[in-house]
Amino acid sequence: MSDVLTAPKTMERIGTADASAVLERYRQVRQWSDVLCEPLETEDYVVQSMPDASPIKWHLAHTTWFFETLALKPHLPGYAPPNRTFEYLFNSYYNSLGKQFSRPQRGLLSRPTVAEVREYRRHVDTRMAELLDGAGDDTLGDLLPVIEVGLNHEQQHQELMLTDLKHMLALNPLHPVYRSEKVAPRTDVPDAVWIEFEEGLHAIGHDGRDGFAYDNEGPRHRVFVEAFAIASRLVTAGEYLEFMADDGYERPELWLSDGWAKVESEGLEAPLYWIGDGGDWKQITLAGLRPVRPDEPVCHVSLYEADAYARWAGARLPTEAEWEVAADATLGRTAARGDADPHANFVEEGHYHPRPISDAARAGGQFLGDLWEWTRSAYSPYPGYRPPAGPLGEYNSKFMSSQVVLRGGSCATPRSHIRSTYRNFFAPDKRWQFFGLRLARDA
Amino acid sequence: MSDVLTAPKTMERIGTADASAVLERYRQVRQWSDVLCEPLETEDYVVQSMPDASPIKWHLAHTTWFFETLALKPHLPGYAPPNRTFEYLFNSYYNSLGKQFSRPQRGLLSRPTVAEVREYRRHVDTRMAELLDGAGDDTLGDLLPVIEVGLNHEQQHQELMLTDLKHMLALNPLHPVYRSEKVAPRTDVPDAVWIEFEEGLHAIGHDGRDGFAYDNEGPRHRVFVEAFAIASRLVTAGEYLEFMADDGYERPELWLSDGWAKVESEGLEAPLYWIGDGGDWKQITLAGLRPVRPDEPVCHVSLYEADAYARWAGARLPTEAEWEVAADATLGRTAARGDADPHANFVEEGHYHPRPISDAARAGGQFLGDLWEWTRSAYSPYPGYRPPAGPLGEYNSKFMSSQVVLRGGSCATPRSHIRSTYRNFFAPDKRWQFFGLRLARDA
Amino acid sequence: MSDVLTAPKTMERIGTADASAVLERYRQVRQWSDVLCEPLETEDYVVQSMPDASPIKWHLAHTTWFFETLALKPHLPGYAPPNRTFEYLFNSYYNSLGKQFSRPQRGLLSRPTVAEVREYRRHVDTRMAELLDGAGDDTLGDLLPVIEVGLNHEQQHQELMLTDLKHMLALNPLHPVYRSEKVAPRTDVPDAVWIEFEEGLHAIGHDGRDGFAYDNEGPRHRVFVEAFAIASRLVTAGEYLEFMADDGYERPELWLSDGWAKVESEGLEAPLYWIGDGGDWKQITLAGLRPVRPDEPVCHVSLYEADAYARWAGARLPTEAEWEVAADATLGRTAARGDADPHANFVEEGHYHPRPISDAARAGGQFLGDLWEWTRSAYSPYPGYRPPAGPLGEYNSKFMSSQVVLRGGSCATPRSHIRSTYRNFFAPDKRWQFFGLRLARDA
Amino acid sequence: MSDVLTAPKTMERIGTADASAVLERYRQVRQWSDVLCEPLETEDYVVQSMPDASPIKWHLAHTTWFFETLALKPHLPGYAPPNRTFEYLFNSYYNSLGKQFSRPQRGLLSRPTVAEVREYRRHVDTRMAELLDGAGDDTLGDLLPVIEVGLNHEQQHQELMLTDLKHMLALNPLHPVYRSEKVAPRTDVPDAVWIEFEEGLHAIGHDGRDGFAYDNEGPRHRVFVEAFAIASRLVTAGEYLEFMADDGYERPELWLSDGWAKVESEGLEAPLYWIGDGGDWKQITLAGLRPVRPDEPVCHVSLYEADAYARWAGARLPTEAEWEVAADATLGRTAARGDADPHANFVEEGHYHPRPISDAARAGGQFLGDLWEWTRSAYSPYPGYRPPAGPLGEYNSKFMSSQVVLRGGSCATPRSHIRSTYRNFFAPDKRWQFFGLRLARDA
Repeated sequence: MSDVLTAPKTMERIGTADASAVLERYRQVRQWSDVLCEPLETEDYVVQSMPDASPIKWHLAHTTWFFETLALKPHLPGYAPPNRTFEYLFNSYYNSLGKQFSRPQRGLLSRPTVAEVREYRRHVDTRMAELLDGAGDDTLGDLLPVIEVGLNHEQQHQELMLTDLKHMLALNPLHPVYRSEKVAPRTDVPDAVWIEFEEGLHAIGHDGRDGFAYDNEGPRHRVFVEAFAIASRLVTAGEYLEFMADDGYERPELWLSDGWAKVESEGLEAPLYWIGDGGDWKQITLAGLRPVRPDEPVCHVSLYEADAYARWAGARLPTEAEWEVAADATLGRTAARGDADPHANFVEEGHYHPRPISDAARAGGQFLGDLWEWTRSAYSPYPGYRPPAGPLGEYNSKFMSSQVVLRGGSCATPRSHIRSTYRNFFAPDKRWQFFGLRLARDA
Repeated sequence: MSDVLTAPKTMERIGTADASAVLERYRQVRQWSDVLCEPLETEDYVVQSMPDASPIKWHLAHTTWFFETLALKPHLPGYAPPNRTFEYLFNSYYNSLGKQFSRPQRGLLSRPTVAEVREYRRHVDTRMAELLDGAGDDTLGDLLPVIEVGLNHEQQHQELMLTDLKHMLALNPLHPVYRSEKVAPRTDVPDAVWIEFEEGLHAIGHDGRDGFAYDNEGPRHRVFVEAFAIASRLVTAGEYLEFMADDGYERPELWLSDGWAKVESEGLEAPLYWIGDGGDWKQITLAGLRPVRPDEPVCHVSLYEADAYARWAGARLPTEAEWEVAADATLGRTAARGDADPHANFVEEGHYHPRPISDAARAGGQFLGDLWEWTRSAYSPYPGYRPPAGPLGEYNSKFMSSQVVLRGGSCATPRSHIRSTYRNFFAPDKRWQFFGLRLARDA
Repeated sequence: MSDVLTAPKTMERIGTADASAVLERYRQVRQWSDVLCEPLETEDYVVQSMPDASPIKWHLAHTTWFFETLALKPHLPGYAPPNRTFEYLFNSYYNSLGKQFSRPQRGLLSRPTVAEVREYRRHVDTRMAELLDGAGDDTLGDLLPVIEVGLNHEQQHQELMLTDLKHMLALNPLHPVYRSEKVAPRTDVPDAVWIEFEEGLHAIGHDGRDGFAYDNEGPRHRVFVEAFAIASRLVTAGEYLEFMADDGYERPELWLSDGWAKVESEGLEAPLYWIGDGGDWKQITLAGLRPVRPDEPVCHVSLYEADAYARWAGARLPTEAEWEVAADATLGRTAARGDADPHANFVEEGHYHPRPISDAARAGGQFLGDLWEWTRSAYSPYPGYRPPAGPLGEYNSKFMSSQVVLRGGSCATPRSHIRSTYRNFFAPDKRWQFFGLRLARDA
Repeated sequence: MSDVLTAPKTMERIGTADASAVLERYRQVRQWSDVLCEPLETEDYVVQSMPDASPIKWHLAHTTWFFETLALKPHLPGYAPPNRTFEYLFNSYYNSLGKQFSRPQRGLLSRPTVAEVREYRRHVDTRMAELLDGAGDDTLGDLLPVIEVGLNHEQQHQELMLTDLKHMLALNPLHPVYRSEKVAPRTDVPDAVWIEFEEGLHAIGHDGRDGFAYDNEGPRHRVFVEAFAIASRLVTAGEYLEFMADDGYERPELWLSDGWAKVESEGLEAPLYWIGDGGDWKQITLAGLRPVRPDEPVCHVSLYEADAYARWAGARLPTEAEWEVAADATLGRTAARGDADPHANFVEEGHYHPRPISDAARAGGQFLGDLWEWTRSAYSPYPGYRPPAGPLGEYNSKFMSSQVVLRGGSCATPRSHIRSTYRNFFAPDKRWQFFGLRLARDA
């Protein structure tokens, strides 16, 4: 294990057109992908455990392809790709950049090998350094937005590497361990507190000024929000066990229709990665199989499970506007970002799992880290939203149907990647990401 | 063909606790189900052409089961069901009322026969008359909401009977005709006009006072709407043909990701029921196969097709708030209902198809009838929404995920069923209902 | 119910080129299709309960199409088909006669109606009479083989009509009755007797001289058969219950690998149509739901179940050669045909179910009727086999892979349809036909 | 590459109870698995490209599990398995030895790593040496049959390793090469000669005396075979191209029904691994992508393709009895085995592909090697066959349904593994093994 992890970096956001600072930031983010891979065996890079997931080596190559395709090819004169087939193999979903190799078959490719993918990364990194070295201000101005997106893109894939890896390891009866756990002492968790808000016209969304944000976070715009209250912390596994003990998975009246259909067709009776062990429950973590801890936030629940729990609890999920209003009000709008919240549990902490409810959370100040929080908001364009022209227009906008917004980042998210306006989105039945929930209610 | 159709009824809404008026309304609505069946052969009642659809005889029985279960059993002392198995066969999705026969297998049941289903209808109708006859004011007060929902429920199934029938007949190479068409003369269609609205805080939703509305239409609440413009009429088939001619079905950049996946996996190249015939297009209607008419609204498009067309046209779909604000402003809020709009094309007109763009539509006054209009709004609860207790709580609320709101009613909708607050909802890939689109744009 | 059934016909086989005798035979066989339909409601003709089955009205139309296509079109000058689309709708699998409507969608067609199908039958019957009336000896010589095949073909579909109908009715929770049962008194069943045969070179198969046979029954040829013994009767439900009680469905070592996979994936624990009722078993028959009778042959078992039972019993299934050698030896070769065995339980008996083990069976003389008997022989061409030229070449030969031979005819088979050389064939997992088993063993 | 391949071993069959000879044979066969893996990267061991295939590391572990389970556990006192989970992970299909990890998910397991599997192999090999070292005559007598089966089992998996690897590499657009080809000069291929046989009673099958044979090869028994002729060599790619040019894949009358359904549903138009390249055809081999050679036997055809070709050619496939009679007559019965035929193309030759038609084949003497030859015989038990008791009874007998026999061995088969009585079997639609065909006809 390298020192990089034990001395977690605060990766600075790019706020300047200084080429050497950009390159430093580029190297930090790219290196973090390697750090995350340190515990892996070569075999671990190859497997795709379901169509939603990708092999680790595919993630490493795809994020590299992104820089090659959007930075090197248009901007580095005479750039020669090391392998033209990579253009096809490592294009994820950009139709404007050509055909893509079949997504569910990514795990059927033993080649390129991990070593060849690393060589591809080195090749592109070298050329990126060369490109930045020689870039005048004009080129730098063009490059910067692409590099910013590319690095944020790599951070997203760093999170996916952990969640895809966890899904793959969880299928293995040998229960392999990614990294051993830092065991925290068992704590008592007091009841969540309701934080109340008056009705009013609020502005939400990113204003495009304060650092990087994805296109889908803007424009900043007004929404009318009725009076509401939101819980001071996430729902715990202990609370969720009460829902289960009260026949939560056997009472259709608690569930959305699509959710109940899943319960019945898949025989669901607990969150993903929970394994019944006589009367007790264990759960698979990246540190292996161990008992469920009631003082931790419940995780790996679908929107359906989150929604059913909330209904059982006499509450509901927050809308994304409510969540953002509450987070901004609680943390302070400019402080409502990962790198301004040293107490939040992001990936650099090395837990790879939500921590027991913290003092900060108890104080009602914790909206970031630990787990992505399901909202009741479908993922839709904000008023006045326009996707960017070109391939980056495909990044976010074409997924604006049948997905649900999640907020706040997780224990697998890089710290510098998150802010209160950040909109993550997944289909409502997904569970393999670090998903949890926070309750809300009408005032 | 009975006279009922040629002298279309204005079915009065129940606004009174007068038992005889209620019974008259009950009889009118129930009779309309029979009127719609007049052209059918016995065989037409049996088939289920896809899991989304149901056999006609199932619709006739299920709507009857609704009254039996929710009115007769709780309110008519000593009521004896004619067949206990019907409780299971004709329960659609009410988990609180017991198990349901497998939905995709509804078309595998030859029994009960059509005659037996009619007998079941007669039995329940007789007992309903008996119940209403003997009802005191208290009972009537309890019954009225149930009967109102039951009649609106039957109206919804009347629309489904036509759309399910159309889907089934369309699969038949013999191209059977439901009812022959009233041919309208070909017209020129002028460009749609943009109706503009200022930004502002608006109230939408049903206030619970002015006649019947479904629970999901309320509560009436405030939304902040940015300035926008909305088209004065629906998009026509002629306009849609231009989209097709401009390679609309071959350009992934126009499509939502899920939509493009459908285009590729199902080889889509035109709306449902369109059949390429050399250079020309024909379409299957309830009057059989005939050429596509460019002066008619395009119909049987999915949300994905509607959205792709709008993007191609440099516009977008309206939100449901925009649509309601525009409809109320244009028609007048109290007049924005089907039975106040004599020019609208509802099922009683006997077209069973959208009409060529009308003068009213040209004048910008047409928001109801012809086709359900896709919005870009996911189907979600309104702020403060609470589903009713008991089985009726399952009617609308449990479907509030992965569905999209449509507005306005169609040529298959009973006139008295519609108002501007009405929220219809379907999954975004569905096409077999009478679905069309109207454009909107930011101001 | 007409008298036809209660006075069962001995339908004479065509042994002559006498046109009027042929027409009489034609009418008898065709009329029998109507007789079988007498208990049906219109709705019963429409449904297709699984891809293997077809709607009753499809059977009625397809058998008519057969005569229209292979007799009328080539032989009746100026013959005009009433509907050209029928050529497509009612072609089952004859690629040489054009494209076919999708088999799994046969149940999605409400039209033509039952009345229209009957009219189609009348039209073709009238023209067939006309054709036969006017046929000279030459034409008759050409026609006769086609008509013979066509009538045998219709007889096969008569059996399928009953089995497809049974499958459809069995899905219906109302448990509809086709025809009420003739209840036979309960009997004791003595142990089966082993009939022994010496090793030797035997001839099997049809020699092409003695009346009609399908192409796949010939040529008659020699096979060397080792010494073997075969049981005097079918395995009973009582015996099969012992297998079940001895955990027959829970012991993989008893099963072929494909069969065990079915047991596990489909949760099999009894023959098709058996319904556990506390400690007891009921079964769905064409006379409705009633208790399993231990004195009846077990029916609706797959090859896998038959094979597993045989292994459990320390025996095996016979090869088709063994079966034929035994049947010919027991019954006498010329007598080994349905119309020579008045005691056999064929469809004309009106049981539509295997009878309790009869005295004849006890005496070891019963090889025909009651149930088709699984053999361990794959369905392959006999040495020297050549399929006929033209569309009839598709009748049997193209199915000679992945199917298993069954012998002997069933309670749903027309008596005149069966002989000892008759080779029926189905995939080994099928159960909806009247399938049973007889044990064999090495000497 | 080690010398082992270039100096191919004649692996002596075990004909003695001499422990050291047994151990030498054990080491030779086990070592060959390593030799085959020499060209592989670690990543190549992990992938499972379809449910029929397995990862290479699974093959290496499963063959080891076989010896551990059947030799070490019962016979080596105090044997301690290194990992109890391996008992579950590496059991293929032996229900009598416990539950099995889901077959289609074998490729989802990154652990145990390749190194751990090699360690497992070393562990078991060491213990096997220990066991054999210390074995008295009695133990050796018990052990020998198990070791013989185990080594033949490993040889079967050596062939599967190559065919599974080929299937996986063929999916990769990078066209990885396993080993480069030894290019043979292009040759002219004369017409095949018909070798004729009189009708007669023949004995086929293994008599249990002359060396090892699988249970399913016996007992030796008599079959009556009609006069027939069989081709002197395999059908070539050149001949198959004529079938394709004559619209072989577009004429349903040439195909078995199941085969035609595959042609239509999968759009088949050539053998597996053939890729159309303008007017020409290329094929993927273990040496990469290169043009189809007309002088080579056509390979990677299904039973359906083989059967359709034969029908097109006015011939048919041989039965397995015909094939064995012809092979024994041509080669001499005692010489009809791989290690007695130095000219045959087995895996030790290092071609991994059928060779161009050889002089031996031209002379009519080649029945072994190059390609497995489809017969028209379903895989059934021979008369008098009894599977062995215990787990080895599951080895062959439970697959005796829906499979077809192939004969002769292939370029991927170890030389010492094959004899004329050897019965390989696969489902008729499979193509990924080295499958070809030889014609036969009635005399």
